[in-house]
Amino acid sequence: MTSQQEIKQFASLKLPKYRQKYGQFLVEGRKVVEEVFHSDLHVVRILFTSEYAQKHGVGDNWDQISSKDMQKISQFDTPPGVVAVVEIPKSMPFQPQAGLNLILDGISDPGNLGAILRIADWYGISQVLLSEDCVDVYNFKCLSASMGSFLRVQTSRVDLEAWLKSQQNGSSSLEPVVYGAYLNGTSIYEVTPPEQPYFLVIGSEAHGIREGLKSLINSPITIPARGGAESLNASVATAILIDRLMVNIHRNTR
Amino acid sequence: MTSQQEIKQFASLKLPKYRQKYGQFLVEGRKVVEEVFHSDLHVVRILFTSEYAQKHGVGDNWDQISSKDMQKISQFDTPPGVVAVVEIPKSMPFQPQAGLNLILDGISDPGNLGAILRIADWYGISQVLLSEDCVDVYNFKCLSASMGSFLRVQTSRVDLEAWLKSQQNGSSSLEPVVYGAYLNGTSIYEVTPPEQPYFLVIGSEAHGIREGLKSLINSPITIPARGGAESLNASVATAILIDRLMVNIHRNTR
Repeated sequence: MTSQQEIKQFASLKLPKYRQKYGQFLVEGRKVVEEVFHSDLHVVRILFTSEYAQKHGVGDNWDQISSKDMQKISQFDTPPGVVAVVEIPKSMPFQPQAGLNLILDGISDPGNLGAILRIADWYGISQVLLSEDCVDVYNFKCLSASMGSFLRVQTSRVDLEAWLKSQQNGSSSLEPVVYGAYLNGTSIYEVTPPEQPYFLVIGSEAHGIREGLKSLINSPITIPARGGAESLNASVATAILIDRLMVNIHRNTR
Repeated sequence: MTSQQEIKQFASLKLPKYRQKYGQFLVEGRKVVEEVFHSDLHVVRILFTSEYAQKHGVGDNWDQISSKDMQKISQFDTPPGVVAVVEIPKSMPFQPQAGLNLILDGISDPGNLGAILRIADWYGISQVLLSEDCVDVYNFKCLSASMGSFLRVQTSRVDLEAWLKSQQNGSSSLEPVVYGAYLNGTSIYEVTPPEQPYFLVIGSEAHGIREGLKSLINSPITIPARGGAESLNASVATAILIDRLMVNIHRNTR
């Protein structure tokens, strides 16, 4: 049984401040609910409507609620009829890996953030570092755009300036390469990434990479334009840069 | 003066059937209205509110309307205060060019279509061929996502099956290369495009390339996955494929 107070609490998870307060988020729709159910995440509750149960199987411990209550919780005009309340996993400290390490600075569009998680997942990147002001990963639009990749790509939020400084003052004698996506850097087609762990910083579409990070980026790079568009969408630019950087490495090392 | 009947007609342009009926579409917001104003398109009317005029300059022949009327026409909850009614340009027949020719099959998401026009524009592709069931280019979300690139990238709609067949039975003795984006084709990293005009077909995210086109695609290609994501967003995949195909050519020919 799900009480009206619980319905109200679950519905509140549409807003970031209540996700933070309760440490929970919502996923909605058959495919992603099943993916979450079979993942390592802690599922607090799965709710479904009788219409959903008539069409699809439901689990033993799932709770039936009325269509009216589902409407309150759902983010869709036409709710798919199943929603999971999930515990936000504990954020793991970001551990630089061999090869490319992806850093997002001030990405505020949830669709772009979700699309970037999906791209990272496609290329086998299992963690992404976010600036503190990036949009919430557990935003509904971000989760949707990630197409389930939020389950496989860990995210951590840090003060990027402080974090990058600590990397450059690390014990290693070699300062790591930090690529940054700019409109006037070295052509991506002429760049050969190092064998050591390196970083790729992507800024927001509206503001680019923040001024305070500029001095920490030692390798500004660019996708050269050949036509009239002023810029590329942040997720599209991320995809092209990751593809060029990672697949160069692949060719060099095989 | 703009009559109530005109307001009603302009507001109706939010729907595809009225765009078709009147042969007009709407663009909204300062930047794109100015871009359209300075383009070759025929602007039927530019409408603004007094609030807009107080903040920005307006043209001599622009018409002031009430905020209430603007609300009727606008696609935004908070209208930017300026909207242009524009004539839909006559569609030009698609003329295959040297190098890459982009063909979209059944792209139904307007954000994806707009993003693809923006990518085409970035890479200097000036025309895109659409299947008849692609979403309307003059859909508000498509225009927004294109970030003005709809002004520089022409689109034509055809029966793709018939059109591609006609290309393959053309006068040239050489059958053109038709790449198609699949999940199990040749790795894009191993493909070298021909010097002759060639085609790249992108299908919809949900359904891929339609069955009827399969026999006309002589070179299925793939971006190899390295991680857990099942697929890439259609616009992201298009960007990576265009980048790999076009920039290979660049390197070969310079």
